Amino acid sequence: MSGPEKISATGKVGLTDTSLSDIAKLATKNFGAGHLADYIPALRDVDPHQFGLAVIGCDGETHSCGNADTRFSIQSISKLFSLTLALRLVGVDFWKRVMRNPSMNRFNSISDLETNAGIPSNPFVNAGAIVVSDAIVSRSSAPNRFVLDFMRTLSGKGDIYSNDKVASDEAELGHRNFALAYLLKDYGNIDNKVDDVLSLYFSNCAIEMSCTELASAALFLANDGVDPKSGTQIITSDETRELNALLTTSGMYNGSGEFAFRIGLPAKSGVGGGILAVVPQQMSICVWSPELDIYGNLVVGQFVLEYLVQNLGISIF
Amino acid sequence: MSGPEKISATGKVGLTDTSLSDIAKLATKNFGAGHLADYIPALRDVDPHQFGLAVIGCDGETHSCGNADTRFSIQSISKLFSLTLALRLVGVDFWKRVMRNPSMNRFNSISDLETNAGIPSNPFVNAGAIVVSDAIVSRSSAPNRFVLDFMRTLSGKGDIYSNDKVASDEAELGHRNFALAYLLKDYGNIDNKVDDVLSLYFSNCAIEMSCTELASAALFLANDGVDPKSGTQIITSDETRELNALLTTSGMYNGSGEFAFRIGLPAKSGVGGGILAVVPQQMSICVWSPELDIYGNLVVGQFVLEYLVQNLGISIF
Amino acid sequence: MSGPEKISATGKVGLTDTSLSDIAKLATKNFGAGHLADYIPALRDVDPHQFGLAVIGCDGETHSCGNADTRFSIQSISKLFSLTLALRLVGVDFWKRVMRNPSMNRFNSISDLETNAGIPSNPFVNAGAIVVSDAIVSRSSAPNRFVLDFMRTLSGKGDIYSNDKVASDEAELGHRNFALAYLLKDYGNIDNKVDDVLSLYFSNCAIEMSCTELASAALFLANDGVDPKSGTQIITSDETRELNALLTTSGMYNGSGEFAFRIGLPAKSGVGGGILAVVPQQMSICVWSPELDIYGNLVVGQFVLEYLVQNLGISIF
Amino acid sequence: MSGPEKISATGKVGLTDTSLSDIAKLATKNFGAGHLADYIPALRDVDPHQFGLAVIGCDGETHSCGNADTRFSIQSISKLFSLTLALRLVGVDFWKRVMRNPSMNRFNSISDLETNAGIPSNPFVNAGAIVVSDAIVSRSSAPNRFVLDFMRTLSGKGDIYSNDKVASDEAELGHRNFALAYLLKDYGNIDNKVDDVLSLYFSNCAIEMSCTELASAALFLANDGVDPKSGTQIITSDETRELNALLTTSGMYNGSGEFAFRIGLPAKSGVGGGILAVVPQQMSICVWSPELDIYGNLVVGQFVLEYLVQNLGISIF
Repeated sequence: MSGPEKISATGKVGLTDTSLSDIAKLATKNFGAGHLADYIPALRDVDPHQFGLAVIGCDGETHSCGNADTRFSIQSISKLFSLTLALRLVGVDFWKRVMRNPSMNRFNSISDLETNAGIPSNPFVNAGAIVVSDAIVSRSSAPNRFVLDFMRTLSGKGDIYSNDKVASDEAELGHRNFALAYLLKDYGNIDNKVDDVLSLYFSNCAIEMSCTELASAALFLANDGVDPKSGTQIITSDETRELNALLTTSGMYNGSGEFAFRIGLPAKSGVGGGILAVVPQQMSICVWSPELDIYGNLVVGQFVLEYLVQNLGISIF
Repeated sequence: MSGPEKISATGKVGLTDTSLSDIAKLATKNFGAGHLADYIPALRDVDPHQFGLAVIGCDGETHSCGNADTRFSIQSISKLFSLTLALRLVGVDFWKRVMRNPSMNRFNSISDLETNAGIPSNPFVNAGAIVVSDAIVSRSSAPNRFVLDFMRTLSGKGDIYSNDKVASDEAELGHRNFALAYLLKDYGNIDNKVDDVLSLYFSNCAIEMSCTELASAALFLANDGVDPKSGTQIITSDETRELNALLTTSGMYNGSGEFAFRIGLPAKSGVGGGILAVVPQQMSICVWSPELDIYGNLVVGQFVLEYLVQNLGISIF
Repeated sequence: MSGPEKISATGKVGLTDTSLSDIAKLATKNFGAGHLADYIPALRDVDPHQFGLAVIGCDGETHSCGNADTRFSIQSISKLFSLTLALRLVGVDFWKRVMRNPSMNRFNSISDLETNAGIPSNPFVNAGAIVVSDAIVSRSSAPNRFVLDFMRTLSGKGDIYSNDKVASDEAELGHRNFALAYLLKDYGNIDNKVDDVLSLYFSNCAIEMSCTELASAALFLANDGVDPKSGTQIITSDETRELNALLTTSGMYNGSGEFAFRIGLPAKSGVGGGILAVVPQQMSICVWSPELDIYGNLVVGQFVLEYLVQNLGISIF
Repeated sequence: MSGPEKISATGKVGLTDTSLSDIAKLATKNFGAGHLADYIPALRDVDPHQFGLAVIGCDGETHSCGNADTRFSIQSISKLFSLTLALRLVGVDFWKRVMRNPSMNRFNSISDLETNAGIPSNPFVNAGAIVVSDAIVSRSSAPNRFVLDFMRTLSGKGDIYSNDKVASDEAELGHRNFALAYLLKDYGNIDNKVDDVLSLYFSNCAIEMSCTELASAALFLANDGVDPKSGTQIITSDETRELNALLTTSGMYNGSGEFAFRIGLPAKSGVGGGILAVVPQQMSICVWSPELDIYGNLVVGQFVLEYLVQNLGISIF
């Protein structure tokens, strides 16, 4: 990892060269404290000692350091964007199929789904994201491409791709996601073929983007639903508030309560090592480092977010 | 119910005479849509067609309407203040005994407690609040009075009392709270006698305060832990953020996810019909109306809070 | 339905012409008290007002009445025979993959399987029977035919078949069984392809046999593991006792406790309307009538078994 | 422990001097394989290297060896007798308050009770036995004495007592039983004061009897409800079958499925180290040795019962 790379002049965001330098040191110091996700080869072959941070203000002010431009597997961070797309396509009726409740169970819990008779607790647990995929498959003839195009538009990068090898490895070993999808189908909460729905689900998880690209793509969530780069209204202002609420109560799965307590920002994590966080009306933040702790949380990422929240005073609470 | 009573000039809070008049009409229109809590006589004998609202800014700007000065049984709203007191007494070690997780189960779930081997999910479910009571009993020779004095100091009203009849009725019928306390005791998470701990618990629930008094007492949560009336630091700034996070993820029990989605404020409800909400750095809000919907949520109170959030733009998201 | 058809002279079994006549009346009187299983066309198109009974002593003494020779879909009764086959193929090591516990949950519960980390509670719940199918698939190049041949040998009827239409309808609508199989696969408790395993599972359920054929096929369970017709040892004497114990604690799913309390015989039911019961050291009994009560239990079948147990004094307790 | 003490001539029961000698060796060889129950002093102060066995035929034929006449704390074995008494007092209406289902959860599970809305799964789990105690308290002015008198009559020994120290120690530490009782009370399934109901419950558990006395007291269960010593009908023949069914599916708690699979007799265990088993129409068996395995099962007792079942061929299956 190299040190801080690109630093704009200190603006509203409040980050200084010193802060970024401190953050880079903090990150480097914690290398080795965790382990890589190892359920598929593509994730366990990543160089573990990498770290990237991008902070982008609603006015475009950008700070980044480390491997902020290195692309990584966004994994479950994709759930935030596919949900946004489903809301654009289906509107409020989407919520007939998924609840807005935190879940105490693991992200891939199947008991949770049975207890709730086929209605996932929220759109970020796997079962909920599979329903999101189904909603998109129903409304697109080329859904994988459709989601990719959405990510390209949001990030302003035309060359964003899903890694086919990662997607097929996940499909190969994703028995539990097949179990969730078939149980959803049994409850009538999947309209399309399980294989088609999961093809999109795995493709989305395998999208590769950098911290800078993800922070840029999520800026509409910090800006009342309007992408400040293009001025396009992605979702309504109300939907934006609702999405940020969901990220706060459920974005970190069964660790969401603890994350809100310690850090206090709407955020979505991915097993590839990324966390995307939103500071409403102010900025988006993406931090990435591949090592996870034994609970599957990001070691370096959480330290960096805690530092940022404390030093910039950006908790929503 | 009379119409708006006391209205200060429109200040930072942003409430106008027109808004308050609209809110009063909205409240009156929804009278009859719910039912009274009926498990103890004192709650079911309340006049159902009452409504009060108090909004107090950190600078003291106060708006209120309806029965804002009528005292009611604060019930579970007390859990917010007793937790504050436990944090003052015990500090961070308190969190060895209670988690910071939302619970999908009902507020009085006993399975939840068994699943977590005697560590309550959060301090707002009954099991968690019983541990809070135990922590206070361990540190006070006259715990009931100690809590009352805390409420008097926070609200600036020396004549706040707990209703003995309500407390003894709750004790008489509170078999499930005894079950929770004995299970906590079995897991070693209660140090004192069950009867002593629940005596404080029931006494706290039976405290009677008005909307104005509650909003005033909670102002420190909107002001980085400092009561703006006295300048006293009640809890630290960090603890204040943490408490507001907890209120957001767990303050409305298993309805917290939905409440965050729809309203977007840290808040605590009580079965007596009150909701106390916090707008960090800005104001506290207390709304009261005794009718509950079939899920135990406040019918009028939620309408009023939705109106306020939309019209004042005060969601934290 | 016709009345009693074939009655042998009263022997050790103790059934008389009068008893059989009473039973036929009892059955007819209760026609209409239930409803047909309706999740696949083949089951809901059966004539509901049918009833058959066959009782066969270990010495070959046979009593039957009604539609005792009409073939019906044996459904979950097949689980008893496929388990027997798996025990023959795998021996005691089979029990590393499945427990011997009653389950309080429904026969197709997926939470149960997740709670037990992929080890089914017993071999009669769907998850357990899917593991049984996997064990057979691993040891046979033509597993569907292999099971059919086993049924033909046990019943002495060379023309027993599985109904392809029923099997394919169940496969088409069997999303929950796919969910169970994929979850088992996720836990490493399925060695073969899910499609291959379920192909055998659905084929077994769709086998069609009559009361007389089923009672005859199960006779080894009443005779210390030896088929008295051929003198062949099907399973050991110890395995036979174990299997009868399993039938008693789990053969009627989460209704097993109640069934043992009321009737007191090792037994296995099927959604096609059949119940196969064993009286150790004495006889096997098969009763069939297609109507189920709202809990999925057989209305007529349970009445008839209660009558038999009371009149013949054949409870094991 | 001394060797075999009293041996009658070999009769219908089929036990020989050689068998009893083998059993005594088997028991001694396994001393030290387990540990004592240690939650109350009285249980952990017992000499662990003791073993007793009594086998009594319906005709009075008696075999015993080891410490068969040493009294021990019968603990949960008392649940069998208090249930018998409740059935005598209340009849079939008793079953409105308790189900007849095996439970997969531990004997003192409180989640189980909440899931079933206050109706215990069966009368042998603690919650069920507490309801049994309540039923007796409602129908007796001196319930503790009433149960003792019943035990004296059944065993023919006028000097059977409950150990007050054990009962008070259990009450002192029985927080979980208080939790269960208060939860039952909350659901309206306890009519009397919790303290009164548990006083009887703890008194029953603390009764002290020997293997010979317990086997003698249980003989009515092997004899269609009639105590063969006195000719008295204790419960009806149907109730006797039902009780033996319940013992088979639930008498060993969540180990009942496994116990039926391995041993195949209706039986009730106690944490004091005793197991009382019934061979319908033949005999009763009581084995005692204080050491438990890590699951709370009796190490020596289960070995001895397996030996007896295999050698005497007395499994009910």
